[in-house]
Formats: sequence, structure tokens, C-alpha cells
Amino acid sequence: MANSCSYSRVKLGSAAVSLAFLAPVLALAAPGGKQPSKPVTPNDVVAGAPAADWARIAPSDLMVMDLAPDAAGHARRVVIQLMPAPFSQGWVGNIRKLIAAHWFDGIAVVRVQDNYVVQWGDPDGETPGKAKPLPKGLMIGPEAQYEVPAVTPQPIRDPARGWVNALEDPYGLAQFWKGWPVGRDMLAKPSAQAHNWPLHCYGMVGVGRNNSPDTGTGAELYTVIGQAPRQLDRNIALVGRIIAGMENLSSLPRGTGEMGFYKTAAERTPIVSVRLGSDVPGLAGYEYLSTDSSSFTAYLHARANRRDAFYIHPAGGVDACNVPVPIRPVPAD
Amino acid sequence: MANSCSYSRVKLGSAAVSLAFLAPVLALAAPGGKQPSKPVTPNDVVAGAPAADWARIAPSDLMVMDLAPDAAGHARRVVIQLMPAPFSQGWVGNIRKLIAAHWFDGIAVVRVQDNYVVQWGDPDGETPGKAKPLPKGLMIGPEAQYEVPAVTPQPIRDPARGWVNALEDPYGLAQFWKGWPVGRDMLAKPSAQAHNWPLHCYGMVGVGRNNSPDTGTGAELYTVIGQAPRQLDRNIALVGRIIAGMENLSSLPRGTGEMGFYKTAAERTPIVSVRLGSDVPGLAGYEYLSTDSSSFTAYLHARANRRDAFYIHPAGGVDACNVPVPIRPVPAD
Repeated sequence: MANSCSYSRVKLGSAAVSLAFLAPVLALAAPGGKQPSKPVTPNDVVAGAPAADWARIAPSDLMVMDLAPDAAGHARRVVIQLMPAPFSQGWVGNIRKLIAAHWFDGIAVVRVQDNYVVQWGDPDGETPGKAKPLPKGLMIGPEAQYEVPAVTPQPIRDPARGWVNALEDPYGLAQFWKGWPVGRDMLAKPSAQAHNWPLHCYGMVGVGRNNSPDTGTGAELYTVIGQAPRQLDRNIALVGRIIAGMENLSSLPRGTGEMGFYKTAAERTPIVSVRLGSDVPGLAGYEYLSTDSSSFTAYLHARANRRDAFYIHPAGGVDACNVPVPIRPVPAD
Repeated sequence: MANSCSYSRVKLGSAAVSLAFLAPVLALAAPGGKQPSKPVTPNDVVAGAPAADWARIAPSDLMVMDLAPDAAGHARRVVIQLMPAPFSQGWVGNIRKLIAAHWFDGIAVVRVQDNYVVQWGDPDGETPGKAKPLPKGLMIGPEAQYEVPAVTPQPIRDPARGWVNALEDPYGLAQFWKGWPVGRDMLAKPSAQAHNWPLHCYGMVGVGRNNSPDTGTGAELYTVIGQAPRQLDRNIALVGRIIAGMENLSSLPRGTGEMGFYKTAAERTPIVSVRLGSDVPGLAGYEYLSTDSSSFTAYLHARANRRDAFYIHPAGGVDACNVPVPIRPVPAD
């Protein structure tokens, strides 16, 4: 009888890995591409990656945002890794100034739009005379800085295998650079004229702006909480990504106002303080799986070709935002 | 001075539209492809679509799931549209039986994994003797039913323009069929041998299962709450999508157990009742923008080529999961 089968909790395949140490170690990654008897999962690759394949993130490149505790009194901390040079450095510099001035302390999460973004800033930012004064010396970035002269290797199109060092998707080409997913011109122009830009994947952090591209300072930020809104790539500055505590933003109640803005002050989540990681005692260290490592290549391949027990049809491909770069907490230095 | 610029709340461009009636009408879609002076946004296209381009969803194809009220006493209703034939009909039939038996009443949301899925089912499903008995006569679907013989038009590859009636992405080809995003074989085989299958986009609802592909009945379901996990396509049965109340699932606290399962019963959200829409007095009607309409074509084009005031660089492409099919509530029949 159909319903007499053993019915047990369903596991939906392996989970997207972002904290590798939580993953059960089922098998080590096969060295030298040798095929093991048991299929290697993305989690296996990450769990088996040697220490040398992990790169430490400097605490001074972390932005630690403490929200007000939740209704049950639990602390809510969000850790953001700031974007490395040469990407978006004007805005990152502004954010460092805003942090140093403790400007973010006391602002709030003002908007949560389902399958789109969580946004935080000065709730009174639109009200002349009431807006919180910004520190002096913030730059207003020109739109040209939404992309930078290419920092990644020239994509190679092999007639037989397609792109061998880039992923192609409907938005163009994607590569991974120092742990970040970046776009790259499709045009076959020499590297000297090509550009890279960060991608709007889940958890990336960007600079809110108005219609004019030169209106965002970094005082109003958002993170992506749904399907990657890749139409925003090269249209807005990305300045970082959330590496811990994402759930403290993604699970907030959705706003019921236009575009998910909260209608009342009571609905907003206050931001108690934002500090650089280097100024936060007791903060964990964080490291990412080097995207130049063979472990990352194996991980990417495993995500594109799932062969663990759950899967019947490996997809044979993957989009860059479906390859979250593994990041894990480690003891602080 | 840089910081003397007018600082106002940032709008991040137009929002992803799923409830078109909320969108401000800025301009009507240009008839006959004539270019208006003001760029047409996706929201404009939806707002301007004639009544004939909207298709009603039968109330008997809706699954209305009422969660326990939230801490403030607010009702939490989730409306799911069941997948039409010929997709996944074995599992959809099971779900209709489970609804008729009121089997879902009293089960709970048991798992919320950030950027992946919310899952609901019998919390005791794994415990022999304690598991809630399933109604008799449920079928166990063979994996062959994860896809169906092709129902969409043969994709056309124009040497000059690429795919003209399909979107290509790293996972293959996608088309839209009766309001649903579906995959299609890349191989140039005749339609008689080709297949379609539903895509794991945000808000799609699937049947949890164990490693063996024939273990899912439909009594344990999940919905996608992050970047589309397209690796699950053709590996698991999709039976519907959430068309209202998604925020009641996506904003639930993330589980802290393995793979986002809740560790304690107290963390779970009880499901009070699940009924067919045709059995719920006062339920709104719902309609979707026909994916065969010229309005949908214009909407898809506008999403792939954003030219409204916010955008500097139209992407020139889009992935199927970033083209949410517009669905709106309307007065009931």
C-alpha cells in the first residue's frame, strides 16, 4: 500500500553551505580529481579543504552592526565584510567615516520588501531640518565607479568546452575574485579595456540612492534577501556582504508600506551600534575559501554537478549567485 | 560640499512586481511597440495590461493554509496555487486527498533555512507509532513524473537573435507556460521527445522527500525563500507556488538545528487548517497575467532591459526566476 512506506523527515538534499564547520563530514574531497566511490558533495569539498586554501579576513574590514535585541531579549548581531579595493572604494571610505563618527548608532531598519531587500538608514533622512547631519568630507561617487578596470584574468572561450574560467549567464560573464563574485564584460576586448563589477547576490550589501546616480553616500544601505536582482548590477554601488547574522535581517517582518517601507516608527528595528571589527572585543575571526584554490574549483564543480545520493539529474551548470563563497568563523587572532 | 546634497530616502529602483495593483501607474505600456517619451517600466506594463490579458485561477486550484496567529494576534494566511495538469499530478492528487481529509490541520512549520527553504509537515513524521496516519490511497510518484512530455512550443534558435521564444541560462532553457516558468531540454530533439518541468523559483512549492526519489507523498512540503536552488529541478516534484501571504513564511525565525530544523516544539509555527479555496468563504479571486499575452512579452522585455529613470545600464538579459509572473487579487466571482 502506498502509504505504508516508511515516512520520515525529508532532507531536501544538502543544504547551501555557508558555514562549513556545521556540515557533517561524509567524505573528503578526492585529491587529484580521482573519483571516489562515494560522490563528493559541495559540503565534503569545503570540509576537506586544507588550511592553506582558507584566507583570513582582516577585522578592520568588518563592519559589526548590533541591532536592538529581539522581543525575547536575544542579541542580534550582523557582521558585514567590506568590499576590498579597487571596488567601490569611495563609498567604502564614506562608510568607514560614518562608522568612526558613530553615525549609524541610533538609526534603524526602515524597509523590508519580500524577495528583494532589507534597507537601513536615517528614518528622518527625507525631512529637512530633522535629518541626522552627516559627517563632513563624504565623497559622492560618480557612476563610473560602479565598475573598475578588469582585475580578473581574461576569460577564455574554448571552442570545445565553452568558457573555462568564467560562468556565463543571461547577464553576461561572472568570475570569482578574492572571494567575491564579479561580473565581466562579454565583449572580446583586451583586458586593458575590460571591466569588473560586483554582483547582486543574496546577502550582498549596497548603497541606496535616488534616481540620480550620484546621490548615495553609504549612509543608507541595503542587503539582498531574495532572487538575485541582477538588474541592479552596475547601476548601484555594492560595498560588502553579510558574512554572519544574515537571519537577523532576512527574517524581519516585511513592511506593509509602498516598496516594503515600514509605515510606523514602532515597526522599525533600531540599530544600536556599528563598529569596525577591529574595535569589537571578543569578535570571532572569519576566513573564506580562497576562490583561487583548487578546493574552490572543486566546490564550484560539485555545486554545478550534484551527484550525492539525493540527486537524479545533475544540472550540469550553475549561476554565480548559486555558488555562495564558503565563509566560516574561526578563533580570533 | 559633498554632504550638503539633498539627502532623501532611497528607492532602489522599481520593486519586483507581484501585486500589480500596488504599483503606481506612471505610464501605460506603449501600444504597438511605439516608443513613448517616458521609458516603460515593468510595473507600467502590468498596470496597463488589458483585462483580456489576465487569466482567472479557479478557487478549486487554490490551497489556503492558515497558520496560527502571530504574537500580536494577527492572522497569517498563505494561499498556494496548485500546479495544473500535466505537471506533478500524482502529488497534486495526493495533496487534494490530504486537504479533503483535513490531514494538514494541526501539523506545523518545522524548518526554516535561510536562503533556501521553509518546510512544513508532521513534526513526528519520523517517529514510528507517533507519526500522524496518512489517508489511504496516496500514490508514490515515480521519478519519471518530475518532468512531462513537452507542452511548450519548440524553442527557436535564430542565428541572428539567439533564442526567440525561450530564455537560456546556465541550467538550460526556460519558457513560460500557462503562467508558470518551466524548463525545457536544450537538445535539438523534436517536440515529441522533449520534456518540460517546473522551475525552483522563489515561492515555488515542492514535495519533500528522502534520498530515494519515490518517498515523497505531498504530506511534507517546502517553499523556496532565497536564490533559486535550480539544482533541485527535475530532482523533486514541484506542486505549486505561493501567490499570497509569502511573507508569513519567509519572515519566520530561522531554525538553529541542522539544515534549519527547529530544535524545539515551541519554535514551530502551528498550521491551524488547510482548505481548498473553493471551500473558503470570502476568499478573494486571483488572476495571473497570461504568459501568452503580448503584455507578458512586453513585461519580460522590460525586466530584461530596465530603462526607467533609475537605471544607467540595462542588463540586456534576465533569468526566468527574475521574471515573477504578475498575480493579483480581484473580487471573488
